[in-house]
Amino acid sequence: MEFQAMTQNQLIIFDTTLRDGEQSPGAAMTKEEKLRIARQLEKLGVNVIEAGFAAASPGDFGAIRAIAEAITETTVCSLARANENDIRRAGEAIQPAKKRRIHTFIATSPIHMQNKLRMTPEQVLDRAVQAVQWALEYTDDVEFSAEDAVRSDIDFLVQVFDAVIAAGAKTINVPDTVGYSVPGQWGERMAQLIARVRNSDKVIWSTHCHNDLGMAVANSLSAVLAGARQVECTINGLGERAGNASLEEIVMAVKTRRDVFQLETTIDTTQIVATSKLVSTITGYPVQPNKAIVGANAFAHESGIHQDGVLKHRETYEIMRAEDVGWGANKLTLGKLSGRNAFRTRLTELGITLESEDALNAAFARFKELADKKSEIFDEDIQALVSDNVVNEENFKLGYLHVASQTGETPHAEVVVLENGVEHRADATGGGPVDAAFKAIEKIVRSGAELLLYSVNNITSGTDAQGEVTVRLSKGGRVVNGQGADTDIVIASAKAYLNGLNKLHAYAERAHPQV
Amino acid sequence: MEFQAMTQNQLIIFDTTLRDGEQSPGAAMTKEEKLRIARQLEKLGVNVIEAGFAAASPGDFGAIRAIAEAITETTVCSLARANENDIRRAGEAIQPAKKRRIHTFIATSPIHMQNKLRMTPEQVLDRAVQAVQWALEYTDDVEFSAEDAVRSDIDFLVQVFDAVIAAGAKTINVPDTVGYSVPGQWGERMAQLIARVRNSDKVIWSTHCHNDLGMAVANSLSAVLAGARQVECTINGLGERAGNASLEEIVMAVKTRRDVFQLETTIDTTQIVATSKLVSTITGYPVQPNKAIVGANAFAHESGIHQDGVLKHRETYEIMRAEDVGWGANKLTLGKLSGRNAFRTRLTELGITLESEDALNAAFARFKELADKKSEIFDEDIQALVSDNVVNEENFKLGYLHVASQTGETPHAEVVVLENGVEHRADATGGGPVDAAFKAIEKIVRSGAELLLYSVNNITSGTDAQGEVTVRLSKGGRVVNGQGADTDIVIASAKAYLNGLNKLHAYAERAHPQV
Repeated sequence: MEFQAMTQNQLIIFDTTLRDGEQSPGAAMTKEEKLRIARQLEKLGVNVIEAGFAAASPGDFGAIRAIAEAITETTVCSLARANENDIRRAGEAIQPAKKRRIHTFIATSPIHMQNKLRMTPEQVLDRAVQAVQWALEYTDDVEFSAEDAVRSDIDFLVQVFDAVIAAGAKTINVPDTVGYSVPGQWGERMAQLIARVRNSDKVIWSTHCHNDLGMAVANSLSAVLAGARQVECTINGLGERAGNASLEEIVMAVKTRRDVFQLETTIDTTQIVATSKLVSTITGYPVQPNKAIVGANAFAHESGIHQDGVLKHRETYEIMRAEDVGWGANKLTLGKLSGRNAFRTRLTELGITLESEDALNAAFARFKELADKKSEIFDEDIQALVSDNVVNEENFKLGYLHVASQTGETPHAEVVVLENGVEHRADATGGGPVDAAFKAIEKIVRSGAELLLYSVNNITSGTDAQGEVTVRLSKGGRVVNGQGADTDIVIASAKAYLNGLNKLHAYAERAHPQV
Repeated sequence: MEFQAMTQNQLIIFDTTLRDGEQSPGAAMTKEEKLRIARQLEKLGVNVIEAGFAAASPGDFGAIRAIAEAITETTVCSLARANENDIRRAGEAIQPAKKRRIHTFIATSPIHMQNKLRMTPEQVLDRAVQAVQWALEYTDDVEFSAEDAVRSDIDFLVQVFDAVIAAGAKTINVPDTVGYSVPGQWGERMAQLIARVRNSDKVIWSTHCHNDLGMAVANSLSAVLAGARQVECTINGLGERAGNASLEEIVMAVKTRRDVFQLETTIDTTQIVATSKLVSTITGYPVQPNKAIVGANAFAHESGIHQDGVLKHRETYEIMRAEDVGWGANKLTLGKLSGRNAFRTRLTELGITLESEDALNAAFARFKELADKKSEIFDEDIQALVSDNVVNEENFKLGYLHVASQTGETPHAEVVVLENGVEHRADATGGGPVDAAFKAIEKIVRSGAELLLYSVNNITSGTDAQGEVTVRLSKGGRVVNGQGADTDIVIASAKAYLNGLNKLHAYAERAHPQV
């Protein structure tokens, strides 16, 4: 009852960056990376963190458990297919959390039931109820999703939701798994479900939309206008294919158009840009300049353009203020003369916890090295520096690199790679210095990995900024993003390539469900 | 009448990449670049190309005129504020086109009328009618837009539209200039206008939405469901701030959800990816991987991931086919042994027309040079090569560059820059080879420009791919994107920097209206 009262005028923000977002090709994260994002999500003020899919692998299980231990205010959730093993693993993973949720799902569309599950509707209905019952052994807060609800028969959906609510589910999620819906229709479906399902006023209705036709945000908000009080979304709209609904767009639409939605969220919007940058840095997924809210151009006066209209009267062209979402907050924080304590304090303010004094010392040494090369150190530089430091179980490290760029000459690279401390030396020529360096590294590592994507972004502006290089590597059907940061982009590229190779070694293959 | 009959079941696609898209910071294009995009838009099958804003500058005027001369099937349009000079310039610019349109606009919201125009509603109404009358001297096809319609009083909008239709406007555009609307409301506004405006069935209703809250596509389609039969949009959703509605998302939503929209477009969807890549290459605006339709991940099986579900039964997770929008069409086309004729033929197939034999020879020489370094030449390589070639009136050219990357050493760059053919030599050290090269160039050019953004994307995959570098430079309030492509990213960076400096010299400052 208290649960209900609290949420009459509140929209619950359920963040699935760490689960559905992580399913993007190459976005797999280490436990430490997930912890950093989870802490930032708590600071941002999301209500539920879907921390992963516990049954996918021991690594996923461990990351959820670590988040459940670290997070104090926010509900920590694990996804689980509707089977006993998945649910028990989820229950064990979230056990340390103060507020815990199990999110179980099963597909309800004919195409999924026939082709993927090979189950009859009756079997699906029974299994859904059973799954909720198993989950209730671990927590009162059970969410049920009907996968591919957009292509499911509405009578069957009503039957399933009636049954899982009777069994004790508290949140009912209606996903557009394939991004097929249009707003009017999606709101109408939500309204019909709420009208027809028994005891629909006793649960929170939720929606989870994908962006394949570019309408994930509008579909989510259409469901909200029809009565949904939870939206499942990700930072930067990260997610498989065209991604999920963007948290930042949902939140700012509800805030900017309070006249339409008349709802509150618990989000501290000034944390949006910092969260966006952290997720982008860790996953290697860039945000395009013309992305709403968090794109570099989203606010005119931030992109270096001061048009007459904007100068004369701000509201002429701006419906939101850049500072409300945290733009312009990347203050110059540390410099060459900053000491170890100032560095440690700034890490804490950024929500970064290093595991040991050794890790702190190593990070501080890299900071001093960077400060020698770069006059101004920004928060983003510190984030990158720590990210670079985080893969501890490294197989391969860059020992030495020399390569020259010269017009009209073929670049020739010499590298030393340390494999678990043992030096290997090689050289190679290539089309450019990066190509030559990668070829020399391959002579040593012989990974046979294919380079799918290569991109560089400057972490901050200015010519002495660090370049952050992302490489996407593929081998035997597995895809990883490797990253490296350095003021020298050729060296950053070599680091990124080795980081990718380390990740190919480190990550076991995992099952990835879709909701 | 025939006009009406044709469009009952047809959605008119009005592309404004070359006008509203070009207003993105740094996206200013040369005449040749605009021509290439216009030819590709015609191949894509758009109905109207808004080629620019003729009164903005002689350069804009010239580009529209060149497009009007080159395009044969598609309507060519110029934007014009509601004043005599703007409209006469627009009329003259589009004059050579077989099908020509003038798009005139004036703001109708209280905030814009008071703060920007400093006009009374009566003055605005009179001026709107007068503008349509001036435009009719040049063409029957006149479009009228009420800028900031989203925040305009609906009674006043009805009055203005009644008057401009009586004066002879054939298309009535309702823009959400600031990206403030939500779909239900926006469709409702369109429905009310169509219901209340006299002779509303004699004109085409149009919508133009911005993406500040992430709902430009959904808002546009909501207006379409309410009776709009023209959507104004851009490739990749390019545009100021968070951009415009994405053409590719609008078109694929209408096609995929024919059951909902029951409309046809004339778009050849297999040209979508090629158009997206061309616009991205020319403007320097990257497309994020999780962008719908044209992002590298938009289709699961294109991103290197073959999930069980997708393999077993494609429709389980896919609502569109990648090949329907032109993915996978970047065939290996030319190699080291390809001759001048094969190269010329491929250029023609790609819609690239070089102005002279000299330009063709220069491009072919660069192609042979590239083929020496890179085993496989893709269409994207050819596009980049020609782009690189296009700024003819170059002040500054790279003559020579040498710089080394070595772990633990400070990079030192030596460069020779040719300024209108005269050699200048300089050297500098920097945080990385790119920084050192930029500093050495600055010693020669002394532009004082600020580097706002630096990014690199590989044009194709594979380690020997060309890197395409984009730098965004700012000086005295003007912002340009410079680009350079090379298999060596340090050399590509130097070229991009010089290209940016050349653009800062070349482009006169221009007024940029917003609609």
